[in-house]
Amino acid sequence: MKQRVGIVGFRGYSGAELVRILERHPGAEPVLMEHRQDVGEIRHSKARRIACTPEAARSEGLAAVFLATPAEVSMELAPGLLDAGIKVVDLSGAFRLRTPERYQHWYKEPHTAPGLLGEAVYGLPEFCREAIRGARLVANPGCYPTAANLAIRPLVEAEIFDREAGIICDAKSGVSGAGRKPSLKTSFCEVTENFTAYSLLSHRHVPEVLLTSGLEESQFSFTAHLLPVDRGILETVYFRSRQASSSAEVVSIYQRRYHDEPFVRIYEPDQAPDLKAVQRTNYCDIGVHFDAAGGRGVVVCAIDNLVKGAAGQAVQNMNLMLGFGETEGLL
Amino acid sequence: MKQRVGIVGFRGYSGAELVRILERHPGAEPVLMEHRQDVGEIRHSKARRIACTPEAARSEGLAAVFLATPAEVSMELAPGLLDAGIKVVDLSGAFRLRTPERYQHWYKEPHTAPGLLGEAVYGLPEFCREAIRGARLVANPGCYPTAANLAIRPLVEAEIFDREAGIICDAKSGVSGAGRKPSLKTSFCEVTENFTAYSLLSHRHVPEVLLTSGLEESQFSFTAHLLPVDRGILETVYFRSRQASSSAEVVSIYQRRYHDEPFVRIYEPDQAPDLKAVQRTNYCDIGVHFDAAGGRGVVVCAIDNLVKGAAGQAVQNMNLMLGFGETEGLL
Amino acid sequence: MKQRVGIVGFRGYSGAELVRILERHPGAEPVLMEHRQDVGEIRHSKARRIACTPEAARSEGLAAVFLATPAEVSMELAPGLLDAGIKVVDLSGAFRLRTPERYQHWYKEPHTAPGLLGEAVYGLPEFCREAIRGARLVANPGCYPTAANLAIRPLVEAEIFDREAGIICDAKSGVSGAGRKPSLKTSFCEVTENFTAYSLLSHRHVPEVLLTSGLEESQFSFTAHLLPVDRGILETVYFRSRQASSSAEVVSIYQRRYHDEPFVRIYEPDQAPDLKAVQRTNYCDIGVHFDAAGGRGVVVCAIDNLVKGAAGQAVQNMNLMLGFGETEGLL
Amino acid sequence: MKQRVGIVGFRGYSGAELVRILERHPGAEPVLMEHRQDVGEIRHSKARRIACTPEAARSEGLAAVFLATPAEVSMELAPGLLDAGIKVVDLSGAFRLRTPERYQHWYKEPHTAPGLLGEAVYGLPEFCREAIRGARLVANPGCYPTAANLAIRPLVEAEIFDREAGIICDAKSGVSGAGRKPSLKTSFCEVTENFTAYSLLSHRHVPEVLLTSGLEESQFSFTAHLLPVDRGILETVYFRSRQASSSAEVVSIYQRRYHDEPFVRIYEPDQAPDLKAVQRTNYCDIGVHFDAAGGRGVVVCAIDNLVKGAAGQAVQNMNLMLGFGETEGLL
Repeated sequence: MKQRVGIVGFRGYSGAELVRILERHPGAEPVLMEHRQDVGEIRHSKARRIACTPEAARSEGLAAVFLATPAEVSMELAPGLLDAGIKVVDLSGAFRLRTPERYQHWYKEPHTAPGLLGEAVYGLPEFCREAIRGARLVANPGCYPTAANLAIRPLVEAEIFDREAGIICDAKSGVSGAGRKPSLKTSFCEVTENFTAYSLLSHRHVPEVLLTSGLEESQFSFTAHLLPVDRGILETVYFRSRQASSSAEVVSIYQRRYHDEPFVRIYEPDQAPDLKAVQRTNYCDIGVHFDAAGGRGVVVCAIDNLVKGAAGQAVQNMNLMLGFGETEGLL
Repeated sequence: MKQRVGIVGFRGYSGAELVRILERHPGAEPVLMEHRQDVGEIRHSKARRIACTPEAARSEGLAAVFLATPAEVSMELAPGLLDAGIKVVDLSGAFRLRTPERYQHWYKEPHTAPGLLGEAVYGLPEFCREAIRGARLVANPGCYPTAANLAIRPLVEAEIFDREAGIICDAKSGVSGAGRKPSLKTSFCEVTENFTAYSLLSHRHVPEVLLTSGLEESQFSFTAHLLPVDRGILETVYFRSRQASSSAEVVSIYQRRYHDEPFVRIYEPDQAPDLKAVQRTNYCDIGVHFDAAGGRGVVVCAIDNLVKGAAGQAVQNMNLMLGFGETEGLL
Repeated sequence: MKQRVGIVGFRGYSGAELVRILERHPGAEPVLMEHRQDVGEIRHSKARRIACTPEAARSEGLAAVFLATPAEVSMELAPGLLDAGIKVVDLSGAFRLRTPERYQHWYKEPHTAPGLLGEAVYGLPEFCREAIRGARLVANPGCYPTAANLAIRPLVEAEIFDREAGIICDAKSGVSGAGRKPSLKTSFCEVTENFTAYSLLSHRHVPEVLLTSGLEESQFSFTAHLLPVDRGILETVYFRSRQASSSAEVVSIYQRRYHDEPFVRIYEPDQAPDLKAVQRTNYCDIGVHFDAAGGRGVVVCAIDNLVKGAAGQAVQNMNLMLGFGETEGLL
Repeated sequence: MKQRVGIVGFRGYSGAELVRILERHPGAEPVLMEHRQDVGEIRHSKARRIACTPEAARSEGLAAVFLATPAEVSMELAPGLLDAGIKVVDLSGAFRLRTPERYQHWYKEPHTAPGLLGEAVYGLPEFCREAIRGARLVANPGCYPTAANLAIRPLVEAEIFDREAGIICDAKSGVSGAGRKPSLKTSFCEVTENFTAYSLLSHRHVPEVLLTSGLEESQFSFTAHLLPVDRGILETVYFRSRQASSSAEVVSIYQRRYHDEPFVRIYEPDQAPDLKAVQRTNYCDIGVHFDAAGGRGVVVCAIDNLVKGAAGQAVQNMNLMLGFGETEGLL
């Protein structure tokens, strides 16, 4: 029999993607939790709908709940669900940092559930798999940091880049990463035939990358850009290295690191992924080019921001938390 | 009375843009030179058409000819036109480098008019204005290098960045930069909802940036990307600096450098241009952000690849060569 | 000396287009009238700004005011401006119909300035030129009806189509036609890679077409569609005829009717315009195909919804009202 | 054990879609047949590749072959495969019409395999299911006719529309319908922000609609348009009726007709589908609006041109021909 799992925020882009993935999952069945009047509606779903309360969740027998909600809503809902014995995968930024001070610094709001920051596990399975298996509360990574961490941490682990020169991550995202709430910035006429840089060196996803990669803030230059596409993130990462000798050598570092990872694909030397390679999949595709003469390297990393960058990774985390096979419903 | 100027390659995107600009020019009148059967047709132009020969150009009384043609065609046509006493603005890469060896290294073909490399003037008015005024042959800059040079050279002149860390230029271009000839890479279904990195560290526009900026190849990491838009280039340039103390200080370097330039607009500190700010104009817009604590800087630079990156700059060069006001037809 | 003209709603798409056109107009100078906090801002305009009151308009010496505002705002503002002796071009639907009852039927709101309905002149110069010249208040046509009336009325005047079969107008518009206010329906992720039919047989632009064309409602089937483009309208009009004998014959009807019109271009038989032919111009392009064997005809009509469908036509009307040449600022 | 089925033309858009669908099919396994050097490559497929000959097909034990090829290639390949005892689903127009004369009239080329026209079965399961089950050769319908026939034939069967007024079908398709071969018409810069009408009243898909619907050519006005989207077809069908009394009544005609059809979804009265409702699915969605006062009706019909309009329907046909459940691999 399938285990029931709740989704709050199912009308948003990440929430609707969760519904689509879970409706094909062999072991889980989605239940839609009506919290507040979201924008829009989802199409063609026959999933059951219940109220968004710990009581309803418990009486429905939910094994886990996904919070595809703004951070302030996640901080409000998570404690009650956990108290009711229900596991939580939160897709917002509420539980990704370690201290309320750091949260307030980057999110410009006080944290209203600081007691949970200690136990929340960062949900990047490639680096935190065992902790995720035992977690009650998983903080699903941001879309940008998912790609950035998968692209950067092998370089850090291999100690192969020049820390003084730092790491540059030039990140480009499709519009669905901004959520479904209408705004001028995501209106069609403002976005089509346009391309915009934003949050220069100051995006609130930066601290997640520092935490996971071990870089210091001064060593990491990150700028976000808005692409006129619906979904997909491509990040171009630049580094300098005196040790590396070829593209093939750097590729082999990634191949060894991700050899057993079901959702990370490493390209042949000097090949790079594009968005179409990963859209509507849970894959993270990585390509590397290294110029030994100049000591300059480039890593290109692509994910679907709504799948590996949100709903797909959330289901991957749920699979680990509930004892399913890690790839169930995701291939 | 208007001076007549010829356009070869008027059916391509840059050529058609030349026709549009010159049809509104108060002092020049475009004449279309039929060279070979190009792809497609231009709309609603009543410009006169002549054969593409030095004789036709001379008997038509052309003061200058624009070559909006592939490099091999430009190398074939330029000598005859110059011999006939006609000035040439070449929009291809044929005459941008200084030696036939360097051309062959980057363009993978032998140079067939090496005798002209010595006299060709690089057509970036902000840095070569006086030489352009006296030139017979102007090599109009590539679209990427136009933005890159305008963004980078003030940093080099001010000696404000860390040469060891180098300069990173992450460049994104609309599809018209690839020309009008049909190819799978520029087909709608391959480009829409997609985003692609290409020519990692090896784009043939790189040597133009090295020549003008004075950077060495090992100090300059350049990667090109294909945006799903028709026109526009945005480049995000990263540098490190121990001397600079604020965004405002770096902005003031740009303001001083470009104070009298009619086509370069510097933004307020921490503001960045997008493509819509410059599309269908000859402007180059530049914004700067600097983080003093980390010693990290970002410069965002936007142009229209068909205007300041091609046809507009070519007309700006023609204005200088023929003695028109530099901004005629371009505001 | 230039005459000053005011623009209310200059931050919207039609309003911003008015600013752009008027800033290049040889005889008029735009003044921006701050009414309420609109969405967004316009770029790079140095136009003067004043309060949106009849007193400010009079003391500024405005010759005319454009209302690029919702109908309810236009009904509120128009009477005071007219009382102050200022001519008004209204771009909303407020004054396009003849009676308050008809307005309420189609717009689902009561009309709050019914006293002006009698004198308002419908601003389609190709059919109402002389009345526009003498008007105090011009109701600028809707974007869909501009194309529909220009495409249909020659058929009606020539009495060449079968009234029993009626006229079908399948209309497709870019997103800017919906205005700049953010909404889910015009969000990038909802529109890109999508195409939607709406207002099936019931669009509120229908009565304008009936009024001008002389068709009865039962003879006119109109459906609107939302195209994933920024700007442009293309309408495909179907009719049946027993009298017409060829495409050339029908084309000649249009050529005769529009022979002296500066902004209507008739294509060769069996040729049809696309959006690129008219974007950023005030032209209305029309192509005709007729199959004599089956008695079936198709008319394809394209305009830019923000120019001939809004701001351009409004300036055309202003030119007539203030005694400028009709094409000033529009070619 | 899975049955093997071959795909010729697997690098095209329809062919690649076939590969994707068949790789998830529980009973069939795709084999890629290398015929000629197609454009581009497919991503991430591990399917086996063989030569495109009847011998290779037989020795591989193929139960059926899909021809996702131009009509002239299909006419060349089909006879040999059938002779080798292999069933064929042809996605081209080669075998959709009944006589070589009719083929030559619409396709402007002589038919080179006229002996097969007699036995080919038109592969629209909703109307030809039993014949498809027993067929050796199925002519998979064109993308436009799939939607048009599903939208129109219920009106014809119910004899509810006015034949004198005829049926108008205004059809809009995404660019993938034009195939993957690069051409100026499908280049990104020509298509983006554009919209084009083509084949006015003369599209070669028209005779398929006449054959299946029973309309005469003079009763059917069809115009195709190119949408700036990758995939999806939306057709807006207009009819006149003196008998029908409401949207609900017309909707009920469709509901009865398609009650048992797994891939046709009828909307509530006055609701209409958009492209997003059907993209990447094998569904055909239909909405109806009828205005009794004017006797005017509109039917809006949407499919994915690559799925229900090509590869999905081809697999639906294969399922019937090989005895699989009709929906296998398609839900």
